[in-house]
Amino acid sequence: MFMNLKSVGIENLEYPIKVRRKDGGHQETVARVNLTAEMPNDYRGSCMAVFVGILNRFQDDISPGIFPELLAAVRTGLNAESARVEVSFPYFIEKPAPVTRTSGLMEYNCRFVGTSDRKNEFILSLWVPVTTLCPCSREISNAGAHNQRAMVNLNVKTRGLIWIEDMVAMIETCGSAPVYSLLKRPDEKFVTEQAYNNPVFVEDVVRQVAIKAGEREEITWFSVEAESFESIHNHNAYALVDSADLGGSTAG
Amino acid sequence: MFMNLKSVGIENLEYPIKVRRKDGGHQETVARVNLTAEMPNDYRGSCMAVFVGILNRFQDDISPGIFPELLAAVRTGLNAESARVEVSFPYFIEKPAPVTRTSGLMEYNCRFVGTSDRKNEFILSLWVPVTTLCPCSREISNAGAHNQRAMVNLNVKTRGLIWIEDMVAMIETCGSAPVYSLLKRPDEKFVTEQAYNNPVFVEDVVRQVAIKAGEREEITWFSVEAESFESIHNHNAYALVDSADLGGSTAG
Amino acid sequence: MFMNLKSVGIENLEYPIKVRRKDGGHQETVARVNLTAEMPNDYRGSCMAVFVGILNRFQDDISPGIFPELLAAVRTGLNAESARVEVSFPYFIEKPAPVTRTSGLMEYNCRFVGTSDRKNEFILSLWVPVTTLCPCSREISNAGAHNQRAMVNLNVKTRGLIWIEDMVAMIETCGSAPVYSLLKRPDEKFVTEQAYNNPVFVEDVVRQVAIKAGEREEITWFSVEAESFESIHNHNAYALVDSADLGGSTAG
Amino acid sequence: MFMNLKSVGIENLEYPIKVRRKDGGHQETVARVNLTAEMPNDYRGSCMAVFVGILNRFQDDISPGIFPELLAAVRTGLNAESARVEVSFPYFIEKPAPVTRTSGLMEYNCRFVGTSDRKNEFILSLWVPVTTLCPCSREISNAGAHNQRAMVNLNVKTRGLIWIEDMVAMIETCGSAPVYSLLKRPDEKFVTEQAYNNPVFVEDVVRQVAIKAGEREEITWFSVEAESFESIHNHNAYALVDSADLGGSTAG
Repeated sequence: MFMNLKSVGIENLEYPIKVRRKDGGHQETVARVNLTAEMPNDYRGSCMAVFVGILNRFQDDISPGIFPELLAAVRTGLNAESARVEVSFPYFIEKPAPVTRTSGLMEYNCRFVGTSDRKNEFILSLWVPVTTLCPCSREISNAGAHNQRAMVNLNVKTRGLIWIEDMVAMIETCGSAPVYSLLKRPDEKFVTEQAYNNPVFVEDVVRQVAIKAGEREEITWFSVEAESFESIHNHNAYALVDSADLGGSTAG
Repeated sequence: MFMNLKSVGIENLEYPIKVRRKDGGHQETVARVNLTAEMPNDYRGSCMAVFVGILNRFQDDISPGIFPELLAAVRTGLNAESARVEVSFPYFIEKPAPVTRTSGLMEYNCRFVGTSDRKNEFILSLWVPVTTLCPCSREISNAGAHNQRAMVNLNVKTRGLIWIEDMVAMIETCGSAPVYSLLKRPDEKFVTEQAYNNPVFVEDVVRQVAIKAGEREEITWFSVEAESFESIHNHNAYALVDSADLGGSTAG
Repeated sequence: MFMNLKSVGIENLEYPIKVRRKDGGHQETVARVNLTAEMPNDYRGSCMAVFVGILNRFQDDISPGIFPELLAAVRTGLNAESARVEVSFPYFIEKPAPVTRTSGLMEYNCRFVGTSDRKNEFILSLWVPVTTLCPCSREISNAGAHNQRAMVNLNVKTRGLIWIEDMVAMIETCGSAPVYSLLKRPDEKFVTEQAYNNPVFVEDVVRQVAIKAGEREEITWFSVEAESFESIHNHNAYALVDSADLGGSTAG
Repeated sequence: MFMNLKSVGIENLEYPIKVRRKDGGHQETVARVNLTAEMPNDYRGSCMAVFVGILNRFQDDISPGIFPELLAAVRTGLNAESARVEVSFPYFIEKPAPVTRTSGLMEYNCRFVGTSDRKNEFILSLWVPVTTLCPCSREISNAGAHNQRAMVNLNVKTRGLIWIEDMVAMIETCGSAPVYSLLKRPDEKFVTEQAYNNPVFVEDVVRQVAIKAGEREEITWFSVEAESFESIHNHNAYALVDSADLGGSTAG
């Protein structure tokens, strides 16, 4: 029986990396890295040192732009037909509070996934927390409305470069309100009222992100999901939409 | 150099158990078990089979009451000076929605910890989700108030028996509102308004639980903490109080 | 712009379930459940109570065979075009030690995933721990060989019924040695030597599972991956193969 | 009823920090931070902005030496009787392979915990992976011996400064062999044989670390535990010893 190994490699390697920032320079962070290659049937043995050696060469300048070269190094190093590299890391962006402009750092989990066989592909994934305030709860209640932290996960393929900073800013407009690391009293008043005036279900959040992603020329494919950590339940509300579902969008 | 091993044992053993219910009968659930014993300096080698063998004998009837016997079996089996058994498991309680009385199952994580050296000790730990609605946000905002799921963790030592069901019911009165697995529209209206009318900080939650625990004669020691998954932040608010801090309570 | 919501639903609901056993009767365990449905563009609002209500009706008899009915209930309940139900749970199997035949319970994580649109599909997923002993380390060293726990994950689609018990037994022959919950000294000697005499890389493990899965008529599709928690590294070795790669297998 | 809040604060704040290295300069990494303060009975409300503001001031130069000042800032900022700061982070150390000297980065999880009430206290915690090879398995088997990754956790209080680098080096001598991120074939042969020639139970590992920690004058208190991810089981072996158990050590 013949069969190719779809992938062989290493998982869960923690490594310090430097990620390029939109404003120039690099951000030092800590990544969890998976590196795999497609290998022929008779392949056996230790590719692990090769993978770690390659990672050593690239860790100091990680950006979407370096993936073609990184993947080529994996394919050459292992004489592999295809390769896949996943780099997941927290990325920090300075964000002023909405009223007092007091600045705090917000953490966003990101993932770069590059694959290379006949062609190169690259996916940027982002996890962005927002507040969701329930439209149903608001409508039926005499006062208040349940609200909660929700996590939005956007995955995009693009033509040309795309910045984490721009995608985060786009997503943060799609919940009931953004989430901050530091809020003073006037800020807390502002975001409470902002959320109350913008009630959304998780399905509204993903639709809104989808519309905005669909308007960006550089995005050629996307999927977006949102999970809301319901304050009235011990389980979560969930919604998903992807660009394949935009088929009829030209009629919109 | 002489030194006793404070503990030797096994960790993270997953095992099915049957837990006694307040209403009679047993609930079948899945536990994560740690078993350790204090051993003399020259001890080396495999106690693991002994531990698993003892667990096999007790798994079908787990309740606070069987811990003295279970711990004695560990001490005898290993000729140990002291023993410690930790059994963590999800426990389900049927809970009607507040208005429609529609019934759903709520999951509560529990832990039984028994220790035995010169005397036996037993701690019941419970994790109970509640809603917290921020008093500050409510006060300063024209409408609405941020709220979120929070997790309350109560740990108690008692004289005599205590039931998970009673501790859960006690804790669920101490947040802005309880959390449910199934709510219809009239129920959602009810809990939204209930939370809005009972704003609490995490520090209010733990104080309230502490007062109620302090009133129960059978509770001889407790600690309680609450962690609130803030809907306006990506980090959590936290508070802790324990019965040692009740020293001056007789003057209250 | 028109777009369907690919899925809307609930995630991370913990619920007690009863799973049918091969030997008759049921095993009570605790599941983490995700239920989602594909909904039209204009859909908004609370499907959560519907989902939990349906789960209440089916929780007492979970097996691959009930998924068509469960999925139909979700589609009808929400007037949805398609539905997806994921039920993940630990499942326990009694397993005698290889020499002394002392019996202990082994835990295997399982997942049932059913989807329904024009047709019904069902995937059984299993996570089975095994020992892997490194062939390279054995060959180059004067004595010993590094070995470790590895996790094998098999996913299968089948025609007709398939039992967890049979898949576990099949996978456990494909590592260097099986893993047990309870081993006495003669058993430990046996598995140590068995592992030393059966060195395997993770790529050998997945190939071996693939060959055995390919021989079973009832399996129409599979993928298998293995992750080895290397004892000489702080990261893991990984391999994946799926039945799509068996294209040329008739020539084998 | 009077009661002080033992602690109020924030948990799970992710923040980028710079940690001082032994060889000079700083390492940029990502921390998970908990900050709490002991507050009087009547305390209610939002300390969260104060905590984040203080963290902003200190994040660029984190070392054990700055904790007194950081804790004083928390106490002053909140007018608190006591304060506690926990900073957990991965720390990377370059480590050459034992034979070829090829260099790779190893990740060690670390935690700094500072508390301040009448006096300041500081605990350094480290998690260091090692290989453990089972003495029993080796003795009873004709060839080979089961071995696995184990995690050693050391917690120390010191007089004067202590470096992560020194504690890691000390712990890595106490297993059957150290763990590396990059090993070539001659290195793999070396560590396989090294482990086979140094069989240890987890209880041997913690005793060995305890002896070495006890010999260091600057260490005034410690506890050490080890958890071994047994390759023949799906659960773990565990041992713990602390310096309190060294009472009779002068007679040793």
